[in-house]
Parts: sequence; C-alpha cells; structure tokens
Amino acid sequence: MIQVGIVGGTGYTALELLKLLALHPHVEVAAVTSRDASFPRLSEVHPELNGVYDLTFELLDVDTLCERVDLVFCCLPHAASAEIVRQLLERDVRVIDFSADYRLNDVTTFEQWYGVTHPDPDRVGSVVYGLPEFFRNQIESANLVANPGCFPTSALIPLLPLLADGLIEPDHVIVDAKTGVSGAGRKANLKFHFPECNDSITAYSVGNHRHAPEMEHLIQRVCNVDSGVTFTAHLAPMTRGILATIYVQPTSGVDVEAVQKSWQTVYEEEPFVRMVHQPPATRHVVSSNFCDIAVFSARRGLVIVAAIDNLIKGASGAAVQNMNVMLGFQETTALLPSNGERVTSSS
Amino acid sequence: MIQVGIVGGTGYTALELLKLLALHPHVEVAAVTSRDASFPRLSEVHPELNGVYDLTFELLDVDTLCERVDLVFCCLPHAASAEIVRQLLERDVRVIDFSADYRLNDVTTFEQWYGVTHPDPDRVGSVVYGLPEFFRNQIESANLVANPGCFPTSALIPLLPLLADGLIEPDHVIVDAKTGVSGAGRKANLKFHFPECNDSITAYSVGNHRHAPEMEHLIQRVCNVDSGVTFTAHLAPMTRGILATIYVQPTSGVDVEAVQKSWQTVYEEEPFVRMVHQPPATRHVVSSNFCDIAVFSARRGLVIVAAIDNLIKGASGAAVQNMNVMLGFQETTALLPSNGERVTSSS
Amino acid sequence: MIQVGIVGGTGYTALELLKLLALHPHVEVAAVTSRDASFPRLSEVHPELNGVYDLTFELLDVDTLCERVDLVFCCLPHAASAEIVRQLLERDVRVIDFSADYRLNDVTTFEQWYGVTHPDPDRVGSVVYGLPEFFRNQIESANLVANPGCFPTSALIPLLPLLADGLIEPDHVIVDAKTGVSGAGRKANLKFHFPECNDSITAYSVGNHRHAPEMEHLIQRVCNVDSGVTFTAHLAPMTRGILATIYVQPTSGVDVEAVQKSWQTVYEEEPFVRMVHQPPATRHVVSSNFCDIAVFSARRGLVIVAAIDNLIKGASGAAVQNMNVMLGFQETTALLPSNGERVTSSS
Amino acid sequence: MIQVGIVGGTGYTALELLKLLALHPHVEVAAVTSRDASFPRLSEVHPELNGVYDLTFELLDVDTLCERVDLVFCCLPHAASAEIVRQLLERDVRVIDFSADYRLNDVTTFEQWYGVTHPDPDRVGSVVYGLPEFFRNQIESANLVANPGCFPTSALIPLLPLLADGLIEPDHVIVDAKTGVSGAGRKANLKFHFPECNDSITAYSVGNHRHAPEMEHLIQRVCNVDSGVTFTAHLAPMTRGILATIYVQPTSGVDVEAVQKSWQTVYEEEPFVRMVHQPPATRHVVSSNFCDIAVFSARRGLVIVAAIDNLIKGASGAAVQNMNVMLGFQETTALLPSNGERVTSSS
Repeated sequence: MIQVGIVGGTGYTALELLKLLALHPHVEVAAVTSRDASFPRLSEVHPELNGVYDLTFELLDVDTLCERVDLVFCCLPHAASAEIVRQLLERDVRVIDFSADYRLNDVTTFEQWYGVTHPDPDRVGSVVYGLPEFFRNQIESANLVANPGCFPTSALIPLLPLLADGLIEPDHVIVDAKTGVSGAGRKANLKFHFPECNDSITAYSVGNHRHAPEMEHLIQRVCNVDSGVTFTAHLAPMTRGILATIYVQPTSGVDVEAVQKSWQTVYEEEPFVRMVHQPPATRHVVSSNFCDIAVFSARRGLVIVAAIDNLIKGASGAAVQNMNVMLGFQETTALLPSNGERVTSSS
Repeated sequence: MIQVGIVGGTGYTALELLKLLALHPHVEVAAVTSRDASFPRLSEVHPELNGVYDLTFELLDVDTLCERVDLVFCCLPHAASAEIVRQLLERDVRVIDFSADYRLNDVTTFEQWYGVTHPDPDRVGSVVYGLPEFFRNQIESANLVANPGCFPTSALIPLLPLLADGLIEPDHVIVDAKTGVSGAGRKANLKFHFPECNDSITAYSVGNHRHAPEMEHLIQRVCNVDSGVTFTAHLAPMTRGILATIYVQPTSGVDVEAVQKSWQTVYEEEPFVRMVHQPPATRHVVSSNFCDIAVFSARRGLVIVAAIDNLIKGASGAAVQNMNVMLGFQETTALLPSNGERVTSSS
Repeated sequence: MIQVGIVGGTGYTALELLKLLALHPHVEVAAVTSRDASFPRLSEVHPELNGVYDLTFELLDVDTLCERVDLVFCCLPHAASAEIVRQLLERDVRVIDFSADYRLNDVTTFEQWYGVTHPDPDRVGSVVYGLPEFFRNQIESANLVANPGCFPTSALIPLLPLLADGLIEPDHVIVDAKTGVSGAGRKANLKFHFPECNDSITAYSVGNHRHAPEMEHLIQRVCNVDSGVTFTAHLAPMTRGILATIYVQPTSGVDVEAVQKSWQTVYEEEPFVRMVHQPPATRHVVSSNFCDIAVFSARRGLVIVAAIDNLIKGASGAAVQNMNVMLGFQETTALLPSNGERVTSSS
Repeated sequence: MIQVGIVGGTGYTALELLKLLALHPHVEVAAVTSRDASFPRLSEVHPELNGVYDLTFELLDVDTLCERVDLVFCCLPHAASAEIVRQLLERDVRVIDFSADYRLNDVTTFEQWYGVTHPDPDRVGSVVYGLPEFFRNQIESANLVANPGCFPTSALIPLLPLLADGLIEPDHVIVDAKTGVSGAGRKANLKFHFPECNDSITAYSVGNHRHAPEMEHLIQRVCNVDSGVTFTAHLAPMTRGILATIYVQPTSGVDVEAVQKSWQTVYEEEPFVRMVHQPPATRHVVSSNFCDIAVFSARRGLVIVAAIDNLIKGASGAAVQNMNVMLGFQETTALLPSNGERVTSSS
C-alpha cells in the first residue's frame, strides 16, 4: 500500500479526492491536514465521509508528515502552496500541487496575474503540467506535477489537437465557460451566498481571468504556437460542472469532420475523453473523470462544446489520474468502474 | 378603460402579461382564451392569479372576441398565430403578436427556418418589429406589431447602436446566450423535466437556432448592413432570465469608451435600458422590463454582456410597452414603479 | 406625500421594502441608512434598484433622520433594533420594527431565547403585534408596531381562528416549516454558501427555534389559551418562500369543513388570505403578500398547509400593510395590483 | 461472474443501478430491456454511461432473457411488474422487484390503493420485504424480493427499533417527508416541468399517499403492532434525496438517550445506517447507500430526522444490497468504497 497525505483537506477538492482515494485498492490516506487546531474528525467537516474514513485532521508538520507518506496532494491556495511544496520536495516526497503556482512558464507572468511574490521561483517553467493526455511520459518520472486549472482543462482538451494540426487560427480563440459555484471554493463570501447565486447567471473577471494566460502558455508549450485566447467565465446556478463553448476559425478547408478526425487520432485510446455528437450537458460528466467534446458548424466558423466536472477532471480526478501515472498503476484505477477497464465506446 | 384580450392564455408569457396588465390603470382584460373546453377559472391554471383576476378561460371565437376588445395579445405558437392574427385584423382589432410569424423580412426565410407554410404571407416584410427603442414611431400607428424574440432582444439592444455607427465588424458577431427554462414554454417535455435540467447546463440548437436569422434581419433593417451572427443558446438551471455574452471585433480605434458613448447617445432617454459597469446578473433584471448592458475589453476585441428577463423585456413586458405606445399611454405605465416615472440614474 | 426612512437598508427585507414602496403613490422614501461609511448609491448594493431609486445610503443620525421622516422601518438585528427604536419614538416618529425585540409578551422569555439584555424592556408586552388580520384596530393608532416573524405568520394565520373557536387541541400543534435561504439574511456564512445549500434540504434548530415561543405567545394573546407548539424549521434549496405543514388534532366532531368554515368567517373579507383546495406551492405566493391556506384530512387528525413569501407577507409586505393601516391608506395599496382593488375570488 | 438483467432500463433507478453494477467485481449486466423498438445504445438514453457500458437496449423476451441471466431487476411500473415477475419466477430466475406489487400484506389493500387488479395475487403476503437490516435471513434464500419504497425506507429504519422496543406510541406517528423530483420518475409531466418545480416547494397526496399503508404493514410485520402513520410528502426543488422529519410521542420515561440506545443496539453493526448528532442534510447521503438518522427533544415529544438518497438506499442501492445478500457476496460490495470494508465510525 502506498501512503499518501493531503495538505489542506477541508475544501471541496479535498473532499472529492478523499472519495476517490477511498476507491483505490493500492493507496491509503495516512494524513490529512488543516489549520483547525481543534483537530476535528474528517466526518465533522465532511459528513459525507462518516463511515468511510476514521481519520482526524492534523496540523501540518512537514517533517513528521514526510516520514509517513510517499506522495502528497497539496490543496493550498496559490503562493501558500509553493512554500510548502518546496519543503516537501526537499524531503524526497513526491507532490501533486493543486494550486496555480507551477503551471505557468515564467515567474513574471505568474506574479503579474496573481499579485504575489513567488516563494519558489527557480522551479517555475520546468514543472510538468498534469494533463496526462499530453504529458504522460514526463508525469511518470516527475517528483512534482502541477495539476491543471479547471477552465484550462475544459478548453485545452478540445483545442490542443486542432492547434497542433494547424486546423484552426490560433489568434482568434474564444472560450465562453460556465462553471458551478464549487469552483469558487468552500469559503463564505457574499458573492456565493445562496440567494445571490440561485436561479441567476452572471459573467465575472470578463477580459482578465487568470486562466487565460494558463491556456496560452500551454498552447505554446504543446503546439509551439502563439495564441490569443479571449476567455469569459460565468457563474451558473449549479454546484459543479464546467461547460465550455468555444468559438474557433478553421483554416482553409477545415470542417466538422476534419476536427473530429483530429480528435479521433489523439483521443481514440484515451479513457477519459469522449467524443459525442449531441451537445454535452454537465450532468453527463458530473462525478466522473470524463471530458465530453463535440463540434458543430456555425454561421461563421466552428463551435466546440466541452463538459467536465470541475472538481473531478478539473481537479481531483486529474490528480488521481496523475498519481496513477506517477506510481505505475493502471491510469483508470479508482476513476472508472469495471475495475478500471473502460469499455469500447462510440456513443 | 381600454378592453384587451389574450389569445392563448395558459403559458408563462400569458401569466406574466396578466400580472403586468393587472397593474395598468387604463386597461382591462376582457377575455382570455384557451383550447381547454372545461372552461377553467384563470386561478386554476395560474394559482398566482387567485384574488387578482376573477375570469374564466373561454374558447376562441374571433367574432365575439372582436366585439368586446380593442386590442389582442396573441400568444399562440408560430403559424397557428398568423392564422388568427389575420382574422383579428380583418375585424379591425389591433394585435400584438408574440409568435415569430411576422418578425422576419421574407416568407422564404420564415418557411425555411420554421418548416411550415406561412398562413398570411402577404403581410410578411411590412409588419413593424416591436422594439420601441428603434421603431417607436411606426409602432404608434401600427395595427399589428411583431413582438420580438427573447434572444434577439438581448442581442439587438446592445448591438444595433454599434452596427449603426460602424463601430464593430458586422461579419463576426458571436452571441453566446444562456436562458432560463421558461423560454421553452409551458409544455411537458422530457428535455425540460426537472431532473434533466436541474444543476446542469447544456447548449442546444448549436449553429442553427431560429433566432439567428431574426437578429440578422433586424440588423439589416435598422443598420442597412449584412451581418454574420454566430448564435449559441444554452439552457441554464434557472426559471427565467437571459444572459447574452457577445463577442465583437471593433473597427479601428474603437474602444470601451467609444461603445459606451454610442450607447449613451441612443439610450440616454430610454427608460428600460441601463448601462452598467459591472457584469450584470439575470437576477438584477428578473421580473422587470430592464435590459442591462455592459462592455469590457478582452484579449482580442470587446465583450458585451446583456441581461433581460426572457418573459418580460423578452416577451410580455415588451408587449405592454408596445401597447402603451400604440394606445398613447406613457410608455412605462405598469412597467416601472413610481407611477411610471423613472428616476435619473447613472449607476 | 408621507416621508419614510429605512434604518438598515442593505439586506433582503430592505430591498423588498424599497421595491414595494416604489409602487406606493402616497409615500416617498426620504432616507436609507447603512453602516457603510463609503456612502454607496442604493443601486451599488441593490443593482435591481438602478433606475428606480436615485438615493445614496447615509449613516444613521437619529436626530437629522427624525426631522425628515414621519415613519421609520427599522430593519436592524435584534437588540440593536430596540436601542434605535427607543430613540426614534422619543422623537415622535412612528416605527415599524422588523426585529423580534417587541414581539414577545415578556422580557424574560426574550432574554432567555435571544441571549441578550433587552435595551428597552419597559415597552415589551405592550407593543402591538403587526398582524393586521387580528390587530387592525390597535395598529391604526400605534406609534410602534412589532412586525411579525416569518414562520409565526405562516403558522398563526391558519391556526388562530381554529384555536379561538376551540376546533383543535392547543397542546399538540406541530409546525413543520420549510424556508428559502433568504430567511437567513444577507450575510456571508458557510452554512448558506451556495454549494452547501443547493440541491439539498436539511432541518435546523430542531426543538429550539426562537419562533416557537413567538407562536405560543401570540396564541395566548389572541386566543387566551396555553399551547404547545412543536416547531421544526427546514432550509430548502430555494431563494424565498415558506411552506408550513401543520399537524393538528381536531376536537370532537371537527372535520375539514368545520375548519374551512372557521377560516371563511375570519378571512372572507381579508384581501391577503386565500383559502385554496389544492396544496399550495411557495411559487404561487412568491413576490406577493398572499398567504395561501388549505386543510386536509389525514390518517390521524388534520393537516394544514400554508404558504407565504418570507420576504413579503413574512416581512416587508406585512410592514407596508401595517404602514397603510397606520397612515389610513387603503390597506392593499402597493400590495395588490388593480389599484389595490382585490377582485372577488373563490378559487 | 453472475449474469443479471434489467427489465425496464430507461429510468433513473435503472441508471443508478447500472452505475452501481459497473462497480461490482462479481456481476455482469447481460441484458437491459426497454419498449423502444429502435434498439438504442444505453449511452443514447443515458449519456452518463458512454464509455462505461457497451450495450444496446433490447425488447423484453422472457424466454431468451431467462436463458442468459441468473437474476433480474424488474424496474417496471406497478401491475406491469407483477405480470412479468410471475413469468420470470416460473423460469427459475431470481427477481428483485422495484415496484410496489409485492410489498403489502394483502391484495385487498393493494388493489384499493393502486386501483388495479393484481396480476399475481397468490404470492402477495408471502414475499420478503427487501430491507436487509430486518429481513436479512429471509432475503438470503428468497427467489423474489420486494424492494422497499423510498419513503418507507426513510421512515422504517428509524422507527422500527423504537416500535419494537415499545419506546414510542404506535398510534401517533407523523412522517413529514421531502423528496427530490427524481422520485417522480423519468417521464414528461407538467407537474415536474422545470419551471413548475424550481425554486419552490409544495406538498402532495396529503393524507392519502400510497406509501402510508406500506409503512403500517411493515410496522405490523416487524413489530406486531397496529400503528397510525400520518404521512405527508413534499416535492422539494432538488434532483434527489429524501429528508424525513418524524414526530413521535415517547412512552413514559423515554428520552433522546433511550432512542439512541435502541438504535445503537440494532444498527451498531449495520454498514449503511449512521447515527448522527446534527440534523442530516440530504447532500450528505446523496449518491451513497447510507441512511443518516438523528433524534432531538422537542416542545412535545421527540423529533427524528432521517436522510437517504431516494435513488440509492431508497431504490437501486437497496436492490444491490439485496442482491449481495441473495448471492452470498459481502453485503457492501459496490456500495461502499475501501473494497467494501466499512471503517469504524462514531461521527
């Protein structure tokens, strides 16, 4: 049994991570930390876990934690995370970091968008991005994996093959994404107070969301292409799920079939990417690690619709998938039923 | 007191219309029709109206209806509507038609998009479009007004001034709209069954929604410009409201301020268009006749966000506004509190 | 025009109050206070009011406020409210108090349930309870009216006639109420964070909710009877509305018809109480001042179902109704369409 | 591998059943039937199952089905179900029946409440009720198990130990239950149209819900006691989950601790019943087979709150639990993570 730890275990991503890890036959959760010095039981903070885990939150002590675990999931906020990740790596523990700290290519862009000094600047730019569909080999041997942002995951999966193949104009990509409110984390804030969100939809961070540079950096890294991604996030009255509607301009002669063919080549063997022919609904992917993608012809250009669960494929499912790759387990363990054997599918 | 009738009174738009007309000091609802031969009371179908209306649904008899009313709101489905509208106009009753039958410029486009033969083709192309902000003078004297579609209203209000002023490229307009489920009407359908819609978002009619040609026709009519509108509709888990996120390419030198200035010129005196500086939420306009619009600078081009209540400014509120113009009442009667006096506002 | 002020204007009840007062032809809002020293415009805190009010929040200064207004709606939390109410009354301004401070019969019960020292103990017990259906005459001449709690309103309207007539056992009344989340106020709190409430229902304050003694006190005051009310509150995933399901034991020979007859006698002329025959839904009363009540025969005893909007009949609508009574206006002004003329109704 | 079939596979309970069975290491789904003669793939009806099952719906042919499977889950409506169950049993296939057809003790009560002639009356009264917590031994050897109703499950689990121990009065039990809309099944119906249910709560079948006699029959069967259960169902704006708030009168000297002790004795070793001390929320049990129960002292008597997922512990999870008992597998297989090993828990 591999022993793992979770640093920062009171939020929604940690809860989903704990639920997934409970399904994993080869991994045991040895420790979960929180800043709450009253040492609550896991089930006091996450009543869902009552009868599933018999653990108590502990305060983070890097030294004793590292003696007990082989791998840590770090679920801390940006900047706070890199400070701890640095210390964990020094003690030879492998880390999957949920924060944005190691996702971008360069420190300057990070500090400009996140407004803080990076506590571990030397590593930035050399950390593997935890999208196994594109970085599987590097993840296998990595000591540190930067778990992708939820919006970038929903956009990069459909876009990267097309940009790599030169099927769409890199300069005019529009990502209109709708997220459930759990994307805002588990912290009281009037903006996410039930009566403020319920039965209503709004846009936020229009024109300046931090996930836009993350998308552009990854497009550069994977496709070696400069891109312009116009990204708008919307808060939809639902708990979880992201639907990304993506408007692209095909290059000459490219049609719906060409896009599907490009996806087919890249994703045919991928267990978690499903090409579908009807517009996906977030309901179809919620509580799963699937990313559903579809493409349609429009008045001008093409429209791509992608759906993920922001907490699973957009966070904790991707983290477990990365862990499976790092530890040499079947990549689908704990993420797909049927003992991880995905059935052949052609929707 | 002006006597009005409602043909097709069991749906959500009719309910909102009845609620608004109850507030109107100069108008009385004389008749509401339905195909239900059991003649239910209004409050049996709309329990909200119990204690507000003491009326019974009647079967439509055009002759007797026209003897009792001066104006009819026709809330029938497309094609069924024009058939009745034709008969009402022959009997010298003025009509506000909620269907799409008279909105487009030409019969061919209508029949192609709606898949039916138009029952009153000769009138098509000469009927005034009920967007008072642009057709007020024609509405005043009209016998028939085509009440606008809900999505077109949310897109045309922000777009028309900019296209008329040449501030944006007409050929690359992308409208990504999210609607509440009441937009689908009040008819049982598995697609709109609560568990299918709740806590989930999806796209529909991607690339081929009937409201796209309506937008293009109106842009042509008002701005005399050929446009290409890529329109995607989304079903959000909420009862009512439309949020339209619109991606436009400004012409040379045009920025956020230029857009705001254009809007200011057109909408300064308009009681129902509010220019705002934060992204509007549908919650802010629901149950009102307001259309909130905002503009932001993005990575490439500009992003406009508009919010309306699909059942009010997108349907019944617009209809009452049109009726007020047709009948010479103050345009805001029954639509704005303070006895219809809108306060000065500069949010 | 009567000038009114609102003390504590940033919450949901103040927002609804402002929307209702905007409809009132004889009342003008002269001042709205908040503790926010940045003096925001009303529309910055309540974007719904943009274009409806052109006012700026002000800090509370009792002296200057009292020079400008004839009546104050006090929307402060308990204890904080009585402190201000006392000062307002000293300056001869009439007050409608939204807090619980003056609702109970005695100071001891108040201090025991609310855990604070009452800042104005001498008035407690002699203040009229603002349920016009039962205290209309006293409200007319009152300088201070204690606006009822939302749960008590939903329970007292159906129960009081039956207890007064001796139709049900006072000792075994069970009120199982479900409320929308706006009942918890407009303050960030993890318990009311959207993902914690959405798509889920829970009970709270089981066996010890502060509104239980309020119900018992009022039953004593109106019916002169000691009662035992078992009250359970539930948080339902909706913005507003209360549904109270009430289990009662009829006295000998009492059936559904006897209950309806008792209600009929008391409520026949009441504009805001609607006797219905199907179980009401909160949707039918939301945004209105109506209270819908129905009664059914059960395995043992009777089941009563009552529905109100917690923010209207349960708070701000009741306050406007009280104001109308205090000021001699038609009681339905700004609360019922048709210029306040309620139609005859017999659902 | 045990081969199982699902008769009636297009609804919500079948979907949940398929998701659970995909997790089962010893069971394979060999056939799923539907009346849809177009033979859709499972993923066309349930897009969630795309990539999980590679099956096509088939028309029901009892003979060929029985050659291929050892056990059938029958998810047909009442009456339709017994007709097929009878045929399946004749062919020596074991059956778990989701309908109400075999739950009651006698045919007369069934026919009175369900308004149909029972197609297999001879078996009624001798079929084991699939609540393993009380009928485990009989389920082991049963050829037919009547899967419990969702509301009865939520009420019987907390009530049966107390009635068996004589801790509460059997004659005055009040069950006020709130269910998600999936409880109404997956069939278009205006009552469950999204805008009719969203953001609103209502009561239904007040005083005459079919699950009331089911509760009373089971109380009689398990506790040998005549009871009077007043049951009210409510439709809450959520997809799934049941919260039952139960009002009981304790017999002399019985308090909260006595109730907890009774539960502790019966449920200490039960993997799916969790005694909790805070009021449970449906969110805590949704997507799990847990039933959370808590008890509180009230003004008069005691208040019990129980929460289950209506589709899991209230339907498909219970069915899998029953199947595990019938087939000799560990009872928690596919229902609890950690390979079915439940951790010790004392919340």
